[in-house]
Amino acid sequence: MTGPRYTKLAAALPATVPFVGPEELQRKRGAPFRARLGANESVFGPSPFAVAAMQDEAGEIWKYADASHEELKAALAQQLGMTPANILIGEGIDGLLGYAVRLLVEPGDAVVTSEGAYPTFNYHVAGFGGTLHKVPYADDREDLRALLAKAHETDAKIVYLANPDNPMGTFVKGSDIAQALDDLPEGCTLMLDEAYVEFAPAEAVPQIAADDDRVIRFRTFSKGYGMAGARVGYAMSHPDVIKSFDKIRNHFGMNRAAVAGALAAQQDQEWLHEVIALVKHSKAEITRIAADNGLTCVPSATNFVAVDCGADGDFARKVLAELAEDGVFVRMPFVAPQDRCIRISAGAADDMAVLAEALPKALARARAKA
Amino acid sequence: MTGPRYTKLAAALPATVPFVGPEELQRKRGAPFRARLGANESVFGPSPFAVAAMQDEAGEIWKYADASHEELKAALAQQLGMTPANILIGEGIDGLLGYAVRLLVEPGDAVVTSEGAYPTFNYHVAGFGGTLHKVPYADDREDLRALLAKAHETDAKIVYLANPDNPMGTFVKGSDIAQALDDLPEGCTLMLDEAYVEFAPAEAVPQIAADDDRVIRFRTFSKGYGMAGARVGYAMSHPDVIKSFDKIRNHFGMNRAAVAGALAAQQDQEWLHEVIALVKHSKAEITRIAADNGLTCVPSATNFVAVDCGADGDFARKVLAELAEDGVFVRMPFVAPQDRCIRISAGAADDMAVLAEALPKALARARAKA
Repeated sequence: MTGPRYTKLAAALPATVPFVGPEELQRKRGAPFRARLGANESVFGPSPFAVAAMQDEAGEIWKYADASHEELKAALAQQLGMTPANILIGEGIDGLLGYAVRLLVEPGDAVVTSEGAYPTFNYHVAGFGGTLHKVPYADDREDLRALLAKAHETDAKIVYLANPDNPMGTFVKGSDIAQALDDLPEGCTLMLDEAYVEFAPAEAVPQIAADDDRVIRFRTFSKGYGMAGARVGYAMSHPDVIKSFDKIRNHFGMNRAAVAGALAAQQDQEWLHEVIALVKHSKAEITRIAADNGLTCVPSATNFVAVDCGADGDFARKVLAELAEDGVFVRMPFVAPQDRCIRISAGAADDMAVLAEALPKALARARAKA
Repeated sequence: MTGPRYTKLAAALPATVPFVGPEELQRKRGAPFRARLGANESVFGPSPFAVAAMQDEAGEIWKYADASHEELKAALAQQLGMTPANILIGEGIDGLLGYAVRLLVEPGDAVVTSEGAYPTFNYHVAGFGGTLHKVPYADDREDLRALLAKAHETDAKIVYLANPDNPMGTFVKGSDIAQALDDLPEGCTLMLDEAYVEFAPAEAVPQIAADDDRVIRFRTFSKGYGMAGARVGYAMSHPDVIKSFDKIRNHFGMNRAAVAGALAAQQDQEWLHEVIALVKHSKAEITRIAADNGLTCVPSATNFVAVDCGADGDFARKVLAELAEDGVFVRMPFVAPQDRCIRISAGAADDMAVLAEALPKALARARAKA
C-alpha cells in the first residue's frame, strides 16, 4: 500500500501541533490539575443566561444551525455600530484565522508577525505555505513600527497583530493602530486579533470605520464571555471582505447551541462586566502572590498575567514544570526575553490559594535544580 | 482602498454556497416551515442521555475541549473493532471532507465523483483548485465501475463515494466497495462517505481492514444519532493517514458539549435502534403517501426517500416550490434524470400528516402550472 498522494505542501508540513492541551498533559502526568490557569479560559464561566440558552437548545440539536447566523450578527452589529454585512460568525478566532489565511496566502507569500506571538496563526500560515517574517517584541510589546517596516520590506500580504497581546498581556494604543492602517503597504491586510479586547482599557481599542477593507478584526466569545469550549468567534471588515469568506467557509460548521449561547452571552453585558471585575481582582492577586515571592509582573490588559520569574527562559521553564508537577497548569512565552515569564490566567479564589501555595515551592525546587 | 490581495484561487472562486439553509428560506418566505423535511436531519432527536450530557457540559463550556478527543475515540474504537489511532474526530463530515481535500488536492489535481452527488464535497474540491470529473448515476445508483474507470482515465487522487447515497438513498454492495479498493489506481484514495450507514442494511457496509490506507471512511453523529447541529463527525483510516490531519486541522475546533453529547449518544445504541425503527416506519409512510398520489419511490437505505414525481426536473422543481410555499421544506436532486424526484426526510407523525395534506395540493398546483 502506498497511501494517499498528499499535496507537496501537506507532505512537507511538520506533524507539530500549536499547543498541547491540558487534558493531554493530565493524561501524561496521570492526575488532574488542581488549578487550570494555562489556557486563558475564564474560570468564571459564561452568563447563566448563556448556559440556560445552550441547555434549552440541546433539545433542538437535531437541526443544523442557521448558516448565516442572522440573529447573532444583528445583535453584534447593533452593539458595535455596524451592519450585519460587516460581520462573519465562525468557529472561534482559530477557525476564522484559518479561513482568512486561506483566502490570502499562497505558497511563498510573505506574512508578518511578532516573534513569540500566537502560534496558531503561524500554524495556519505554514499550513498554506506562507513565509513568516517575524520581528521581535520591544519592551514586552508588539512593535507596530517594526511590523510595518517588515511588511514594506517583504511586500507582505498580512500583518498579524494581537491587541491586547498574548502572551505578554500588553497593548499598543488604538490610535497608533488606526494610524498604522494608513502606513500599511498597498494591498497588505492587518489581521487584528482582539480576543482579549473586553479586558482592555478604552485607549487600546482603535476607532476604525466598519467598512475599512484594510483590516479584519477578530473577536471571540472564548475569553471575556467564558465560552472557549463553544467555539464562537467573529470577524469584522468591509462587507466585500466578509463576503469573500463565503467562498470557502464551512457554511454549516457552527454548533447550534453555541450560537444560541453566544447570543444570550452578548445580551448579558452585566455578567461580562462582573467577570471583568473578577478578572481585575484576580490579576491583582496574582501580582500580590508574585510579589510575595519576590517576582514582578508585566502590567496586563487581558485575563492573564505574565509573571517575570527573575531569570532566563531555562529557569522559567523549570518553574513551569514544577508547577505542572504540583498540579498547576500554566503556560509561558516561547521566545527570549519574554520566556523569562510564566503566563498565569486569572482564576477564582481557590485557584489563587493553590497558586499561593504552589509557587514558592516551585520556585524553590527550580532554584535547587538550576 | 484596494482591499486584500486574495490568492488567485480565492479570487476566481464563485460566491456560491453548497446549500441554502431552511432558516434562510424561512426568512425569504416570511414564515416558519410547518414540516422540516429537507436536510435529512433526525426529527426524532438525539438520545436523552446525549441531551443530558450536553446540558451538563454547558456549565463546563469555559474550558476548551480535549484536542485529541481520547474518550470518544476510545469508545468508537471499541465499537468498531479498531484502535483510537485509526480515528479522527472532527467538525462534522463537512469539516472532515474539507481537511481531507486540503491534504490531497492542489490546483489541477483530478478528483472523481458522481454527477449530482454531495455538493459540499464538490465545494471543497473547487475551493482547493481541484478538477472535478463526474460520472452519471446508473439506475439511480452511484456507478462504482464508472467511477473507477474515470479515476484511471484521469489519474485521480480521490474518488468520492457516498454509500448509502445522497440524494437518492440507494446503495452499492459493501463487497463491491471492498473489491473496488483493489481496482483503484495506485495512489488514489477512496473517500467513502457513510453518513447514513446506520440506516443501511448489512450488505451495504464493506468489510475493510482498519489499517487500509487506500480509503478514508467518514461517519457522523448528525443523522442516525440526531445531532446535526452539534457538528461531530469522524474519519477512519490507517493511523498514518489519520495522523496527517494533525498537520492542518483546527486542533481546538470542537465544541466541548458536542463531544460529550456524541459520547453519550454512541453509548445509547438502544436509542439509535429505536430511531432506525421510527425512520423505517416514516419511510413506509412517505411511500404510502406518495402512492396515494400516484407516485412511486426509490427504495431507500437512508433516513429519506426520493419520491419520483412522475415527470421531469422542471415538474419536480414546481412541486418542491409549491410544497415550500405551503410550509413544507424538502430538497431535491440537482441533475437529470434524478431531478424527477423530490427528497423527503423521515419525520414524525405530525410531519407526515402535514405531508399527506400538502402533497396532493402541491401536485395539483404544479400540474396546473405545467
